Order: sequence, then C-alpha cells, then structure tokens
Amino acid sequence: MKEMIRYSFRDDYSEGCHPSVLKKLEQTNLLQQIGYGDDEYCNEAKEIIKKQINNKNADVHFVSGGTQANLLVISSILKPYESVISADTGHINVHEAGAIEATGHKISYAVTEDGILRVDDIKTIIEEHTDEHMVKPAMVYISDATELGTVYKKNNLMEISKFCKENNLMLYLDGARIGTALTSVYNELTLEEVSNLVDVFYIGGTKNGALIGEAIVINNDKLKENFRFNMKMRGALLAKGRILGIQFLELFKNNLFFKLAENSNKTAQKLYNGIKELGYEFVVKPEANLLFPIFPNNIIQKLLNNYRFHRIKKINNEKSIVRMVTSFNTPETIIDEFLNDLKKIT
Amino acid sequence: MKEMIRYSFRDDYSEGCHPSVLKKLEQTNLLQQIGYGDDEYCNEAKEIIKKQINNKNADVHFVSGGTQANLLVISSILKPYESVISADTGHINVHEAGAIEATGHKISYAVTEDGILRVDDIKTIIEEHTDEHMVKPAMVYISDATELGTVYKKNNLMEISKFCKENNLMLYLDGARIGTALTSVYNELTLEEVSNLVDVFYIGGTKNGALIGEAIVINNDKLKENFRFNMKMRGALLAKGRILGIQFLELFKNNLFFKLAENSNKTAQKLYNGIKELGYEFVVKPEANLLFPIFPNNIIQKLLNNYRFHRIKKINNEKSIVRMVTSFNTPETIIDEFLNDLKKIT
Amino acid sequence: MKEMIRYSFRDDYSEGCHPSVLKKLEQTNLLQQIGYGDDEYCNEAKEIIKKQINNKNADVHFVSGGTQANLLVISSILKPYESVISADTGHINVHEAGAIEATGHKISYAVTEDGILRVDDIKTIIEEHTDEHMVKPAMVYISDATELGTVYKKNNLMEISKFCKENNLMLYLDGARIGTALTSVYNELTLEEVSNLVDVFYIGGTKNGALIGEAIVINNDKLKENFRFNMKMRGALLAKGRILGIQFLELFKNNLFFKLAENSNKTAQKLYNGIKELGYEFVVKPEANLLFPIFPNNIIQKLLNNYRFHRIKKINNEKSIVRMVTSFNTPETIIDEFLNDLKKIT
Amino acid sequence: MKEMIRYSFRDDYSEGCHPSVLKKLEQTNLLQQIGYGDDEYCNEAKEIIKKQINNKNADVHFVSGGTQANLLVISSILKPYESVISADTGHINVHEAGAIEATGHKISYAVTEDGILRVDDIKTIIEEHTDEHMVKPAMVYISDATELGTVYKKNNLMEISKFCKENNLMLYLDGARIGTALTSVYNELTLEEVSNLVDVFYIGGTKNGALIGEAIVINNDKLKENFRFNMKMRGALLAKGRILGIQFLELFKNNLFFKLAENSNKTAQKLYNGIKELGYEFVVKPEANLLFPIFPNNIIQKLLNNYRFHRIKKINNEKSIVRMVTSFNTPETIIDEFLNDLKKIT
Repeated sequence: MKEMIRYSFRDDYSEGCHPSVLKKLEQTNLLQQIGYGDDEYCNEAKEIIKKQINNKNADVHFVSGGTQANLLVISSILKPYESVISADTGHINVHEAGAIEATGHKISYAVTEDGILRVDDIKTIIEEHTDEHMVKPAMVYISDATELGTVYKKNNLMEISKFCKENNLMLYLDGARIGTALTSVYNELTLEEVSNLVDVFYIGGTKNGALIGEAIVINNDKLKENFRFNMKMRGALLAKGRILGIQFLELFKNNLFFKLAENSNKTAQKLYNGIKELGYEFVVKPEANLLFPIFPNNIIQKLLNNYRFHRIKKINNEKSIVRMVTSFNTPETIIDEFLNDLKKIT
Repeated sequence: MKEMIRYSFRDDYSEGCHPSVLKKLEQTNLLQQIGYGDDEYCNEAKEIIKKQINNKNADVHFVSGGTQANLLVISSILKPYESVISADTGHINVHEAGAIEATGHKISYAVTEDGILRVDDIKTIIEEHTDEHMVKPAMVYISDATELGTVYKKNNLMEISKFCKENNLMLYLDGARIGTALTSVYNELTLEEVSNLVDVFYIGGTKNGALIGEAIVINNDKLKENFRFNMKMRGALLAKGRILGIQFLELFKNNLFFKLAENSNKTAQKLYNGIKELGYEFVVKPEANLLFPIFPNNIIQKLLNNYRFHRIKKINNEKSIVRMVTSFNTPETIIDEFLNDLKKIT
Repeated sequence: MKEMIRYSFRDDYSEGCHPSVLKKLEQTNLLQQIGYGDDEYCNEAKEIIKKQINNKNADVHFVSGGTQANLLVISSILKPYESVISADTGHINVHEAGAIEATGHKISYAVTEDGILRVDDIKTIIEEHTDEHMVKPAMVYISDATELGTVYKKNNLMEISKFCKENNLMLYLDGARIGTALTSVYNELTLEEVSNLVDVFYIGGTKNGALIGEAIVINNDKLKENFRFNMKMRGALLAKGRILGIQFLELFKNNLFFKLAENSNKTAQKLYNGIKELGYEFVVKPEANLLFPIFPNNIIQKLLNNYRFHRIKKINNEKSIVRMVTSFNTPETIIDEFLNDLKKIT
Repeated sequence: MKEMIRYSFRDDYSEGCHPSVLKKLEQTNLLQQIGYGDDEYCNEAKEIIKKQINNKNADVHFVSGGTQANLLVISSILKPYESVISADTGHINVHEAGAIEATGHKISYAVTEDGILRVDDIKTIIEEHTDEHMVKPAMVYISDATELGTVYKKNNLMEISKFCKENNLMLYLDGARIGTALTSVYNELTLEEVSNLVDVFYIGGTKNGALIGEAIVINNDKLKENFRFNMKMRGALLAKGRILGIQFLELFKNNLFFKLAENSNKTAQKLYNGIKELGYEFVVKPEANLLFPIFPNNIIQKLLNNYRFHRIKKINNEKSIVRMVTSFNTPETIIDEFLNDLKKIT
C-alpha cells in the first residue's frame, strides 16, 4: 500500500534502483542476447567481479534474491544428512520460512549476542555431533553485515576460515549487505580478502541499489560442478538473465556499488549518533546500516505518524526494540528531520 | 555471448522488455514502497487482472519465472504421495531439471503427438493407479500454448475441466505463452473463460514483453491459504516485488499484453506460410509462436551464417528438426529477409 | 561385537524379545496371510489396542522403528512451510540424523531442564512466529517418557492438549518408552487418558519387549486419510506386516506389555536408590528406565571392566555424566551385583 | 484378513520365514548385543556375504525392506539434480508410491517389453539429456529377477556394466528376487559375477525365506562414506539390528538361501508348463517365480473359489492378465492340485 508518511526506515529495499542501473537497462533493452545468463552483459559483469576479488578461477552466477541464493548454495553443497552451522539470528535460521529445511537440511545454530559467529560456537556444535545418530555439520554460514547490523572483524573471519579448513567445513558468507559491511567505519577487510577467506559467498545487489540480483561467487573448485543444474532445478535460472548481468555491470563499474553502500552507512551512523545523544539505548552498537534502538512505547506511537520502521519486540509495557534501516538513497536531510522530530517528543 | 548474426529465432526472451515497461519502472523508481509484493503497484496490477478474469475472489501472486511458478504451485497443492499428470512434452517433465521431483513429487505423463493432453490420456493414468503402492495422481498440468506451439481448443479444455472436477483433480494451466495462445488465429477462448475452467494458472510475462515476471492466479479457495509462506520458502518472494507489479500494470493497461502477443503470432504465421510454400514440412502445424520445421542439414548449415535457432533433433543424415520462435519484438521485415534467404538456398 | 562383560546398561534394546513373542511368531509362521499389514494378526492387534484406548474410531498402523514412525507421522501432517515444536532434547531434534528436516520441515525447539515441554515454551515459540518470512509452527512433539527419563504429569499434559486445541496445533506424543512412562511410580495417567489428550501417538514395542515394532495410533480424523500411501512412500510398509501385528497381539494380550515395562522401572528405581545412597548425584531425578548419574572419571574406568553404559558428557577432568538404561529383561540380581561393585570402588 | 482358500499365489511373502531362521532367532534371543547393526551376528553375516561375492572390501548393510533399500541407495548416491534410469516396469517407477521422487529425484524410464533394460534404452535416454534444463541421468537401476519374472543374461548385464563404466553411470541392481534369478534354469551368472558387474546391489531376504531383511552390498568405494548416516536419516537403522544379521547368517550358511529359491523356481516352472499345456498364453515367458498367464474371465472367477492371485489387467470382456507367484514354501502338491482344477474347468 501507498505510504502516506514522510519516510520509511523499514528496510533497504523500499526504493527501486539507482537511476544509472535503469539507464543501462534501457540502453541495452532491445539488443538480442542468448538467454539464461549466457549473454555478453553477464559475462562482462562476471569478469569485473573476478578481477575485483582477484580470482580468475572463480565461478560467478547471478540469481534474483537472497533466500534463493542461500537455499541454492547450501543445498548444492551438503549431502542429505549434513547440516549447516549458523548464528541463531542468521537469516536462514529465522527469516526464510524454512527454506533450508525444505531442501532437506538441518540448521545447527549457536546463540550469540551480536549475530557474530565465533570459532568457539562452531567448535561446540562440532563436538556435540559424534556419530550417525545425529546430523553431520559440514558447512558454516555467516552473514556480513549480520542481521543485527554488526560486521566481522579481520581476526574473527581469519580464525573461522582457518578452523573451517582444518575441520573440513565449507565456509559460506551471505553478503546480502556485504556492501555496507565493507564500507563500514568498523570494517577491516577488502572484498578480495573476504573472498580469499571463504569457499563461496554472494554479493547482494537488491539491498544496495539494484532492482534485483545477487552475485554468487564460488571459489572452491569442488563446489563448481553443474551448479547451473541446481539453479535451473530451484527455479533460479532467469530466461532473461541479462537483466542481472546488466545491473552488476553498472554497479561494479566506477565503484558505484561501494559509493551507494557508503551513503547507507553514513546516514546510519548519523542516525545512531543523534539517537544516542538523546539518551536512547541500542540492542547492539550499529556498525552497518541496521539500527536497533530501544524506544518508549509512547515515543514509538508518535514517530509512527511520520515514519515507518519495524517494531521488533516489546520489552515490557514501557518500551520496545525497533529496527531502522538506511539505504543507498536515504537523504541526510531526512535524518536531520527525524532527529529533530525525535528531540521534540523526547 | 554477443550474437554476430542478423536475427535470432532461438526463443521469445532474447530481447529485454517492451519500452513502455521500462518507462514505467523509471517513473516509479525512487518512490518508497512496502516490500515483498505488498506495494501499491502490485495491488493495482492484481485488481486489473482480477477484473480481466472477472473473478474478484481470485488470489494473484507475482513471481520471477516459469519454473519457479510451476514448482511453487505444484508443491503447494500436492500432498507428499500425490503426483501430477502431464503430457510427455510438458515443460515440467522435460525442461525444468527435475524441479517438480526436487519438491518430492512424481510426474505421471502421457505420450501425445501434439503436446495437447486429452481426457482419455488422463483417464488411462488415473485407472492405472489403484492403491497405496503407487502414487496418487491428484492434479493435471497443461500448457497453453503447448511446448509444441499448439493451442487448446474450447471443447478440449472444457472436457478436461469437467473430468478434473468429477475426479477430484486440481487443474493447473501453465500460461508461460498464454498471450500467444489467446491471440492465436486458432484460439476459441477468452482469458476469462480459461480462468473459469482451471483451479490455478499463471500468466506469463517473461515471454511476452516483460523483463521478468509471471502472475499466478488462484481461483480455487482451497489452494489460497498461506501461499505466501510457500513463496518465501521457495525463494520466490522478491524484496522489491514492486518491479513485478509495475510490469504487469503496464502490460495489462490498454491491452498491451495482447498486442505484443499478436505480433509474435503474426510473424510466426508469416514465417510458417513462407516456409511451407517452399515445400518444407513441420512436426506439427504451428498455432502460436513456436515453429518446428524440418530442414535438410546442409540448409541448416547455411542458415546458421545469418540466423540462430535450436536444432532439436537429427532425424537422419539428411535432415533435422529445428525450433524457431518469434517474439513481441520480431519485425515483419526480418521474416521477409529470412524467407528470401531460405528461397535462395533451397 | 560380542560383549565380554557382565552386563550392559547401554540401552533397552540390547536383548531380543520376550520369549512368548517369539513363540507366537513360531505358531503362526507358515500360515498364509495377506501382505502389507492387512493380515488377521494385525487386524486383531489393532482391535485390542483400540479397545485399550477406548476409541474404536482410531486408526492403528504398525511400523518397524521409532525414527520411521516420527518422520512418517510428522511429514504426513505438516504442510511444506510448517514446523514442529519440540524440546531441545527431543529425539527428533538430536538423535535422528536430521530425519525430520530431510522431509522438509524445521524443528522449532525450546531449551528445557528436564526434557519436559511446557505450555509457556510452546507459547513463546508461537509468539515469535508472526508472518510468512518464518516457518509456521503447526504441531507439538513430546516424548513420554522423555529422553531424560522423566514423565509427563497429568496436569502438564492436559494443559498442553488444551493449548494445542485452542491454537490449532496438532499434538503428537512419541511413545518409544510409553510403557515405562505409564508404569512409572510417578505416573498419573492411563493409556486411554494419554490417547484422549493427543491427536496422534505411537506405542513403542522395540524398547519394551518386541523384536521390532511401533504402533502408530491416529485419533484425529483429519490425519487419517491415505496414511498408508505415506507409509509406502517412506519405505515403512513391510511386505510381511504380520510380524508386527503378531508381536503387538502377544504384548497386549494379558497386559504383558505393562508387566515388562514394570520390570524396567523396578530395576531402574533400585539402581537409582542404590547409587544415590552411595552419594552420587544425578542430572535429573529418574522417573522411568533411564538414569543419568554423575560419576568420577576413575570410577567410570573401573566400572567399564564389567559393565557397559554410555558416557554422555565430560563435565570436567574429575567427573562425567553417564547414561544407564534398564530393560524388560534386566534381572534384579544384576542391580545388586552392580551396586556391590560400585560400593567397593567408591 | 484370514484366507479361507486352498492356496494363495498372490506373492512370495504370504508366509513367515523358513523355520530354521526362527530357530536361530530363538537361540540368540536373550544374549545382549550392541544395537543398530554393530552386533556379532550382523558382523558374521557380513563376512559370509563378502566371502560369497569374493570382495572383502565391500560394505554390507542390512535394512528391513525393498522400498527402503531402493530409496536409501538411490538418494544417497544422486546429487539433487540427477536422475535414475529404469525400465518402465521397474519397481521404483511403479510400485513404491513415489518413494524415489519423495527424496527429490526423477526416474527417467524406458518402455520395454520384458522388463529387461538394454544398453540401447539407456543410450537413448542419455542422448536426450543434453544440458542444465534437464535432469542429469547418473545411475541405472535394474531388477533381477525383473518385475515381469524375466532374468538378466550374462551378455546383457556385461554390456550394461561396460556402458555404465564408460559413461560415468552408477549401476544398481535391485535383488528383491536375486535368489530366484540366480537359481533360474535360464540363469547364466553367479552371485560373485553379478556383484562384480554392479556398483551396488541388494540381496532380498523378505521374498526368499526371511521374516524381513535385505542386504545392501556396496562395491564402489565412492558410495561407501557415511552410508549409516543416510540409513539413520531415512529411518532404516533398526535398534535391534541383530534380527537382520541373524536371519542372513542362517540363510547364507549351508546355502539355505539358494535352496529356498530353487523351490520357488521349480514350482513356478511346473506351474508354467502345466498352464501352457492347457493352451493358455503368457505375457512373457516366465524365467523365475513370477508368472503372468492370460485367462478367460470366467475361468478366473472359478479359480478364485479356491485360489488367490492378482488380476493385473483386463484385456477385454473375454480375458485378463493375472499374476501368480510361488514361494520358498510352495508345495509341489499344490501345483498338481491347481493344474487339475484348471484342467477340469478349462
């Protein structure tokens, strides 16, 4: 439904795409191309991504959304009796309507405070699984930025990567928000470094300026074979695959992808600082473009006159946790307005 | 890869979309909307479609592709031990990499000559399945236009619909090419009539002028509950669902959808007549925008210098079946050129 | 491998079956019967069970094992996107190698201290699942006796049953050890009462004196349709289904089933009292035939010279949790011997 | 239900087991053993089978039934997008209620006249599957004896084996009736030879004198890893696995297994010859213990007064195909009686 409000902080996919992406779709629109992602735009976009991660042997595949990418990658890697390890807050564990289980696999999850999985969490799960009466954990799933808006630090990711290699676990990074992770002020990693440390990951376009589209990057040779069969079987092979390639081509030329993510981060930090100064607490300190402030319930009611955001959890009759998200297109002026409004009613 | 040729008759998804679709995407691009298909464009497009089928109680859902629509609808309806009946040539039976089976269901298929399923085919399959040692056929899948370019006649569809109702079988119509079916010169049905005769069907956008997008229409109340859970679980719920609604809105305003299909049919019939006049045979008489002429192998080699099409099957050392497809954007002049070229080398 | 030891407390399936069960198999052995569970013994056994639960409308089906019963019942009831609620220690959640997830369903679990699920646990999970981005919990799974050797009290089961009815949740009771649950000194329920409170449950034969066999009892009419199709599809329909019927016939004539369970409980309580008197602690107070004493590691080493049991978890360098199980065939004298041995080395 | 008739030729599982099998169960009944197939009887039985096939590196696993063996083996080998090739009459394709598809895999089948798959059938299917829009056939399933009572000849099996190796296809033989296949007068193969020619197969106990039980034999090293995880996950790991080992131990000591099969074959051939002499035709010439005579409908009615068999298919108002099966326990005298009765009413 139409939003009769000033601004929605509900998510980073409330707008369409960056205008130059649409322009590129227009320029190429009526040129005939081979279907199903074998077109020249997809090929060119793959080359650019492979150059940016500095791995010319990587396989790159474009799909339309994050849940699709996750179920596709995980189900293509695991044997029937194998499970994937995740943080409790992992997108696959909470917000995909059982998509992973629907492909036959258990998610073995660890409870974390900040959405960040650590080697000890993984180790505990591995040690609990001792024989054929239990699933066999064979893969680790992490999200960066996490669903709580935190980002992986270099050390942490290196330790996980090392542990996975030593324990024969595949490491998969869900990069729905890898753009804001890598441009966060707390970031310590490059795209190339992240890519080097994982077996497979995806670069999220939908939440960072594309209409749709995620780029799955497979580094580990063992995972490459017949991936397109899996894509077709899961309904993930678009007939006009070109529209995914064209968008990534545009986003990764001239670093548009990272510039857009920087806007999300910048406005998020501004929002965070402003809310904090007014004395409100946060569930975790936001490091990317997701914020979880705790507001009194009456303040929330007033804010809802002009703004939109998710009310995540009622803490008690006094206050609740809300989720606010900034996007590639969030104007700084709207942050100012919001903070003014909040100040008035505080 | 880039096509260094005059024209590709490979399929009806070699181009992007009709320009006015892109324009509409542009006009609405930066307006904030609710995600996951709850936006105002989706809602408006749903209303238009419900008006066109004259069923205000229908549920309409937009997804990105045909295989996704098929696996989603079929798996949401069948109980674990139930199967779906299809023609041997059915898209689900041949060209979806086992997508239906991957959701746990057998396809019970009948061999047909023209891709059209008839009541007797269905009856035979039903009668062969007598007890719990066999799957229980519970659904009939038909494609209109069929994968062989033929279209269902009114009588045939009415008989199937009646038989399904009497035998407690759900009837599902794959309308990837329902545009060219309903605008075929052989057509005897309206969209409303088709909709009335089936429990669920989808209107194919991808192969008729959209960038991506199929509109699933659920008429049978029993199939409506919690469909969005299935969509999310199968990775079919796009965050920016708006882009599907916007496209269908544009296609169904002013009948653009049917005008585009008419172009596919007109150029297909012209191509058919021209090839036939030159003395070539066809596997079946084309009624929509798919043609299956039989050409000598040396003629095929020569044609491939300037054109693209699929070589479906080698009949013998002399000749082969090829598949040619026209689209919403195929110019009549290209048909003239092709027929001239073919005449020269015949 | 052969056990060169005095006694194994490893589990309640280390022996074959009660001798009278084998005798009955012998008496009926060469009489011809209809296959797949439609024989006269199965029919007779079903009637006896239906009489005992006082529900002549129940459907009874025999299958070979507990994991099979669980995956069969759960997958036959849930829609693709639905999940089952369990205690964290639930057999389906830990010890079935992902059998439930392999049928496509998530287990939503609550952490409990004693393996007993309570209404508040269920309520919390229900409240966390709000929309189509999450699975839809539609079923509650409880085990009685639990995997920790505790049993459900009347009040607790009645509350769960009521909550499930009010919230449209199916209630399924895993009765792998329902024999020892119902004959526990802590028991407050009859078989009929348990049956009345749940939609579906199974009576475990394997762990209570049968060679193999579990009797699935379906009370809720909605769950009955075509269950045999599911059985066949999951490989659970034995050609010589008679051998399951014959065993249940023997076990439920003259209450043999409950007499055997009483022996398991009696020896378990004797073992518990003896160990407790020697000053050892238990993880939970045992109410059925599973015991979880905490022993010093050196004591464990010495006991292993003559006995077998599972070492569940190392608490620290000093002591560990072990699991001891008594069976229908455990002699009281062996308990005396064990306690004497333990006393000597304590 | 009780059979108030002289004899049932309905199938080869109407009786219990050979008496010496029950005796062995009795002798070992109360000795404690490790659960889940790690007992000494299973181990001993495995050694005997490995000796008989002359492959000490084989892995042997016991499960309770044929459908379970099939779904377990096939699903453990295939990748999600891979299919299994079968004859149209294959048990997995017709009589397992979609068990294979329920694990996610398509069956690509060839129409045969006699239930025997030939290299050309396989080749045709392979050649039709050219790209990622179709499933990828990766396995060949054959039954010996077939569901039509025919047996594989040496040449045929060697050719299939060779073709599979050359084309990277796994070869799996369903040996539900391997006993009668190998003791057929038409047989040209030893158990060792069959084993050498396939990657994996199972030896059917249920239809040849056991109460329950099939022995899966894995020769190909690639298929061995973690098979027990798959078993547990599919509900195929019996707690008292010993009862499977004990039976195979008894059946394979002193060649009891083959002697029992010989009785099935001898009585089947006698039945075949007698019926043929009376002028009746058969669908195919029976080579093992399944017969498909064609009888006039009125003759069938009369026979049903004293005998049982399956009426497979009504050919027309005059006559029908019936299925008759002999077993390890069918007496020759009953064949004489039946033939006399048939002679009288012919």
